[in-house]
Amino acid sequence: MIKYPIQTFDDSAELLGKALAAQDLVAVSQALAPLDISETLEQLERLNTIERALSYRTLPKGRAVEVFERLDAALQADLVSGLQESEVADVFAQLSPDDRVALMDELPASLANRLILGLNEKERALTSTVLGYPQRAVGRYMSPEFVTTHPHLSVGETFARVRAQLDDAESIYTIPVTDTGRHLVGVISLRDVLRADDSALISELMKKPLSIAATESAEEAARYCADAKVLVLPIVDAEDRLVGILTVDDALAILEDAETEDAARSGGTEPLRRPYLATPVGSIVRARVVWLLVLALGATLTVQVIGAFEATLEQQVVLSLFIPLLIGTGGNTGNQAATTITRALALGDVRPNDVFKVFAREVRVGAFLGLLLGTLGFTIASLAFTVPIGLVIGLTLLGVCTMAASIGGLMPLLGKAVKADPAVFSNPFISTFVDATGLIIYFLIATAILGL
Amino acid sequence: MIKYPIQTFDDSAELLGKALAAQDLVAVSQALAPLDISETLEQLERLNTIERALSYRTLPKGRAVEVFERLDAALQADLVSGLQESEVADVFAQLSPDDRVALMDELPASLANRLILGLNEKERALTSTVLGYPQRAVGRYMSPEFVTTHPHLSVGETFARVRAQLDDAESIYTIPVTDTGRHLVGVISLRDVLRADDSALISELMKKPLSIAATESAEEAARYCADAKVLVLPIVDAEDRLVGILTVDDALAILEDAETEDAARSGGTEPLRRPYLATPVGSIVRARVVWLLVLALGATLTVQVIGAFEATLEQQVVLSLFIPLLIGTGGNTGNQAATTITRALALGDVRPNDVFKVFAREVRVGAFLGLLLGTLGFTIASLAFTVPIGLVIGLTLLGVCTMAASIGGLMPLLGKAVKADPAVFSNPFISTFVDATGLIIYFLIATAILGL
Repeated sequence: MIKYPIQTFDDSAELLGKALAAQDLVAVSQALAPLDISETLEQLERLNTIERALSYRTLPKGRAVEVFERLDAALQADLVSGLQESEVADVFAQLSPDDRVALMDELPASLANRLILGLNEKERALTSTVLGYPQRAVGRYMSPEFVTTHPHLSVGETFARVRAQLDDAESIYTIPVTDTGRHLVGVISLRDVLRADDSALISELMKKPLSIAATESAEEAARYCADAKVLVLPIVDAEDRLVGILTVDDALAILEDAETEDAARSGGTEPLRRPYLATPVGSIVRARVVWLLVLALGATLTVQVIGAFEATLEQQVVLSLFIPLLIGTGGNTGNQAATTITRALALGDVRPNDVFKVFAREVRVGAFLGLLLGTLGFTIASLAFTVPIGLVIGLTLLGVCTMAASIGGLMPLLGKAVKADPAVFSNPFISTFVDATGLIIYFLIATAILGL
Repeated sequence: MIKYPIQTFDDSAELLGKALAAQDLVAVSQALAPLDISETLEQLERLNTIERALSYRTLPKGRAVEVFERLDAALQADLVSGLQESEVADVFAQLSPDDRVALMDELPASLANRLILGLNEKERALTSTVLGYPQRAVGRYMSPEFVTTHPHLSVGETFARVRAQLDDAESIYTIPVTDTGRHLVGVISLRDVLRADDSALISELMKKPLSIAATESAEEAARYCADAKVLVLPIVDAEDRLVGILTVDDALAILEDAETEDAARSGGTEPLRRPYLATPVGSIVRARVVWLLVLALGATLTVQVIGAFEATLEQQVVLSLFIPLLIGTGGNTGNQAATTITRALALGDVRPNDVFKVFAREVRVGAFLGLLLGTLGFTIASLAFTVPIGLVIGLTLLGVCTMAASIGGLMPLLGKAVKADPAVFSNPFISTFVDATGLIIYFLIATAILGL
């Protein structure tokens, strides 16, 4: 019987936890034995570094390598520090070139160099190809092992090429077509190869290829792969020569990481580089503290704004009652716009050139929302306090919402324009900015209407 | 030469925009002619409903269908309203069953019924299979068209089965193995089929299958497919009989939608159902206004809290200076924790049962951050104002950060526990809650220390 693994997840976790607490390696091994690779990974990713190293060493050899290559690079590096160098070299040789390079980025340079020198010539060459591209470029994530065919070859000859490279090629289901100069000229799916007569020529069957330059950002390439719904995206150099392929599973992993990063930044924190439960508390603090300090520093602006209007407040302490409500609503409106535009940018639905379109839309959306909330605020505050107070609240809501939506919509585009991560100009950042501006709007309206 | 499409994107957009402005359908057709499907989609997704319908009608027939089936269901429904029913029926018949069902959910019931009746018997049966599962279940997203093999068949026989179904099967690259009762008993990749001798038996080569029940949530299934790094995830019924397959590209689309939804909710807005530029301003307002009203209503709590301490404030107006700073910092700390845990839940790194682990971590992280910020706040406020004021600020920061991180970490887990979207208990929601609680902490500490 096949069981969906979630059902047994908690049992396995409990079993493993008890075995680790008792330092009983046989029991650890037994707890892990019934799990498949994905399940083993899920369990390992919840342990601390020492527990993980202990558990890993109980895995049978073949399984250990399979598990190792699926771990995050940061967790791989943690494990490596607990293994002997000969063991590391073994595992290292079995990684695919792109995974190898990701791990090297996490290791001390001297160890990385020794490991590279221990590879055979072919693997070293493949690794160097990938290593030659800058970090975050798709060249770092591509596989340099692929099967190709040529326009003048027949379907039968192509099929023979595929059969000859079943063990090495990262994917055989989409076959790039290159000319004699290794330029990418087409692409053909294995399905189309199987469908056609053996004598048919590739040149008659191949499709126009999609491709992306190896120096483009990995996220851009992964998004392109996802949007085009292809299993394999050919990667080319500046002369349009095929240098590698990006497979859809690698594209998916890149997008997941990009989304984890975006989500983190939108929440005003740096992404953790390990799964949450595998991250030490100190690292979580480090991921958050800089943002928090910067935002707190920004918030001292609000102290100054209120300070400047302290005399006004002394005359009408009632005004201080609405400060959190007003700036909170401004912050929320700004967050809504920023979130929407950040995501639209990530999906390619909005581009930096669309700045005027976005502004025109967000001003209207903000004014609309401000009108609704302002009317409501006016009515309630007029009844609960006085009509002039109601007027101040209503007009401030109108002004704050319009301002916040426009700023919130523009900030991610500004971020993109200055080549920063749009999510860095993120929600807490916008809130802080909108807080100070909102207070100024509030006190100016209050001073004017209440005649203070 | 192959060009990465982004380079020509703005030119195409400009050309198309001008042609549409001039209502020159020939020019529209010419602007779209050089684009591939993905590029055409990107352009169409930026237009308003009328422009999109105009542009779509200039596409050559074959291209039109290919474009149609890749559009979001909401945009498909927009287009349908501008087409004649016979045209719609044509396109409808060519969609795959899962896409057909997604579109039906967007159409008026009477039209959907007529379209279903217009299908041939086989397509109608396939569509009914998918339609039989609840919305959001993976059964709705699976393809019921697949090729299978059996344990007693040979590799040669299996290969012949694949060749016979090249045109129909959604994927031929991973072949589920079923017994005579259609129960899923294994899985074999086309690569392994090609690698083995023709006479080898499938039973000797097949691997243990991963699978998921058709009634499970689509997001869960897609995450499972991604984590297991498989191209195809077999979908089974309650008796473990194979009923469909989920392909990795559909899994990717499901995850993208889930992440768009999470991002939106974390920003306190409902997700838009169309790409941003294709969404009318009124729909954007609708996606935001309910959240904004609920949050503003929640924020009236802060008005009451400050109102309760109005006498305190009248004695020490200086206290109002720090309100935005203190509650802002609390909100930011809460957001950080909530964002991290929401994402960890989505990735499966944290589970509802981990509530105590998460709480223990977040209390420590919050206290640590509070200690840092509190010390800093104490120092600065003591210098700028008085030592007692410094003490109030420092202690409040300590209290607020600890409280905010714990609440922020727990809320998404609470959301998951009550089967709501964890992101609904999202950042603005937490901010509002933390605002009120933070103010109480602030005024209590102030009253105690300043002896008010």
